[in-house]
Amino acid sequence: MKESIERKLIQKRSEILNSRELTALAAIESEISYGFLEYCRSKGFKLIDVPHMTKATGACENFLTIFDVDFFGEQVYLSQTGQLYLEAFLHQPGFERTCCIGPSFRREEKVDDRHAIEFPLLEVEIADCDLRKLRYHAEGILSTMASNVSEKCTEDLDVLGVPPEWLKTFRPPYEVITYEKAITTLGLSWGSDLKAEHEQALVEWNGQKPLFVTHYPQEIKFFNMRLNREDTKVVNSMDLLFPYSGECLGAAEREEDYLTLRKRLEDSEMLSLMQQVIKKEPGMQDKTDFQIKADAISRFDWYLDLIRKHPVKHAGFGMGKNRIFQSMVASEDIRAAGSYIVNKETIL
Amino acid sequence: MKESIERKLIQKRSEILNSRELTALAAIESEISYGFLEYCRSKGFKLIDVPHMTKATGACENFLTIFDVDFFGEQVYLSQTGQLYLEAFLHQPGFERTCCIGPSFRREEKVDDRHAIEFPLLEVEIADCDLRKLRYHAEGILSTMASNVSEKCTEDLDVLGVPPEWLKTFRPPYEVITYEKAITTLGLSWGSDLKAEHEQALVEWNGQKPLFVTHYPQEIKFFNMRLNREDTKVVNSMDLLFPYSGECLGAAEREEDYLTLRKRLEDSEMLSLMQQVIKKEPGMQDKTDFQIKADAISRFDWYLDLIRKHPVKHAGFGMGKNRIFQSMVASEDIRAAGSYIVNKETIL
Repeated sequence: MKESIERKLIQKRSEILNSRELTALAAIESEISYGFLEYCRSKGFKLIDVPHMTKATGACENFLTIFDVDFFGEQVYLSQTGQLYLEAFLHQPGFERTCCIGPSFRREEKVDDRHAIEFPLLEVEIADCDLRKLRYHAEGILSTMASNVSEKCTEDLDVLGVPPEWLKTFRPPYEVITYEKAITTLGLSWGSDLKAEHEQALVEWNGQKPLFVTHYPQEIKFFNMRLNREDTKVVNSMDLLFPYSGECLGAAEREEDYLTLRKRLEDSEMLSLMQQVIKKEPGMQDKTDFQIKADAISRFDWYLDLIRKHPVKHAGFGMGKNRIFQSMVASEDIRAAGSYIVNKETIL
Repeated sequence: MKESIERKLIQKRSEILNSRELTALAAIESEISYGFLEYCRSKGFKLIDVPHMTKATGACENFLTIFDVDFFGEQVYLSQTGQLYLEAFLHQPGFERTCCIGPSFRREEKVDDRHAIEFPLLEVEIADCDLRKLRYHAEGILSTMASNVSEKCTEDLDVLGVPPEWLKTFRPPYEVITYEKAITTLGLSWGSDLKAEHEQALVEWNGQKPLFVTHYPQEIKFFNMRLNREDTKVVNSMDLLFPYSGECLGAAEREEDYLTLRKRLEDSEMLSLMQQVIKKEPGMQDKTDFQIKADAISRFDWYLDLIRKHPVKHAGFGMGKNRIFQSMVASEDIRAAGSYIVNKETIL
């Protein structure tokens, strides 16, 4: 994207609502959403309405970035993902593939060029699925989106200064490397999380093309990512890195062994962050740490019960729509990569 | 729907997640959502990402039912509609038809068989449009949904005890009467709002068939509904009443005359309710009533400016998905009419 346009697009939405640049964004966004939904419809995915307020099960790893809402005197949280709810249907006939589309809310203290406070998250969960099958679906969805944009948004790309050839970048198949290979390439030590600059270095190393990185250390990933049975240091996870935006998709097989799952929840970073948050809820002040931890775990009971009763092998992913979009319009700044993006500067 | 199933479905979601009845709901919901999106796609609607946190412009008439969120020390509100944001695009080439799908949050104190706290709202806005054209689109969308459900959810309807012939109820065209005729039929006086029992009486009077009621008194409707130029007592609005659920769709032409619009905002019930709410915001305590009113109005500046600069004739509607769903599955209780419905009892 042209830098001058990028600068224009990170202004307050109300300042640019009438601009051709903003409608160029919105036209492309529309094709991306329809692309996702068309793919899902054609492959038999059930489109599920997921809740956007939960007691805890709408949270991602970093519970500190969750927004709370006073819900008639109780505290509830705005959801960041519908994943667990999508998983809940998979064992039922006809529901082997589920998907949802909706807002994800992240209380990011530092508004920067990589983080949005609210963005649409596109999610799928699939029964009887592993990383290989997930790649097939991820590539299918992303190439449907890219073809839609190529075919229907020629003028819009032109307005933003994006060369039409750029969309060819998203043609599958995408390269796949392990986390281990990635850190060796980058000269990092085992256990390091990949920061934005590392993701960009890997994409560059791959010739500015999309790249899957698989098998991350279990400690740095969500509690329900499935432990690799041959090497329990890692989980069967997979992040997709895109030029410009870095991680735009987080995928994993899900743990279906109840005891492993429960233990991983109990030991998870998420749960300890969650305890810091929920001990400030009304009525929690006089509880012991032990009671708070038990309360935190109990909020996942419905999900744990479900896995205990119906241990179906399954896998899924979530895609940050603005990250995908940012890459498709080749923008350096996520704030320029969406027709709204709520943050402190741009809230309407 | 069978009463025993209804009783089962209003239990906590976590109790019934594994039930065939719940997946029957979810399968039908999926067809309803896809039906909406297919219709919109085929008619060239742009699918817009609308913000779900705003300073005020995501509110519906009753500002007292809005949830607030602490947004880094500022107070913001969870949106109840994306309507004004959808309208913002209509004057741009290629954006003559916009739509969105997403959660609407209503802080309903009294959880009952007619109100949900969170539900998916399906919305469209259309340039160069009047009530007649709106009816065409509303009937098109609803009949697409009903055919999808009829064709693809035979078993699910059976599980819920809904006779397949019931779906024929939703075949267009639907009857149309004015508000004036409606109140005469019901023996009500001018200016009365139609309560749930009145809506049901009208639907019954119409042989348990869908029924549009048009031209409501301006006082009881949203500030931007277009004044009827021949009879300024009424606005060019239109509610669609369905068996079981009552009002499932609220439609109107939108006011494009800037001065009329501004005056109606200033005099609106919504604005006075809004002032009660925003005067409790941080930093508002020492403001005068006059300053609070000015602040409230200023939050609509981006929208008012837009209409001032681009007075395009347009119209649109929002459909409460669960109300549509409730009617299609012939349920007496909205809590049984959706795969999640967040309320105090069912929050996950």
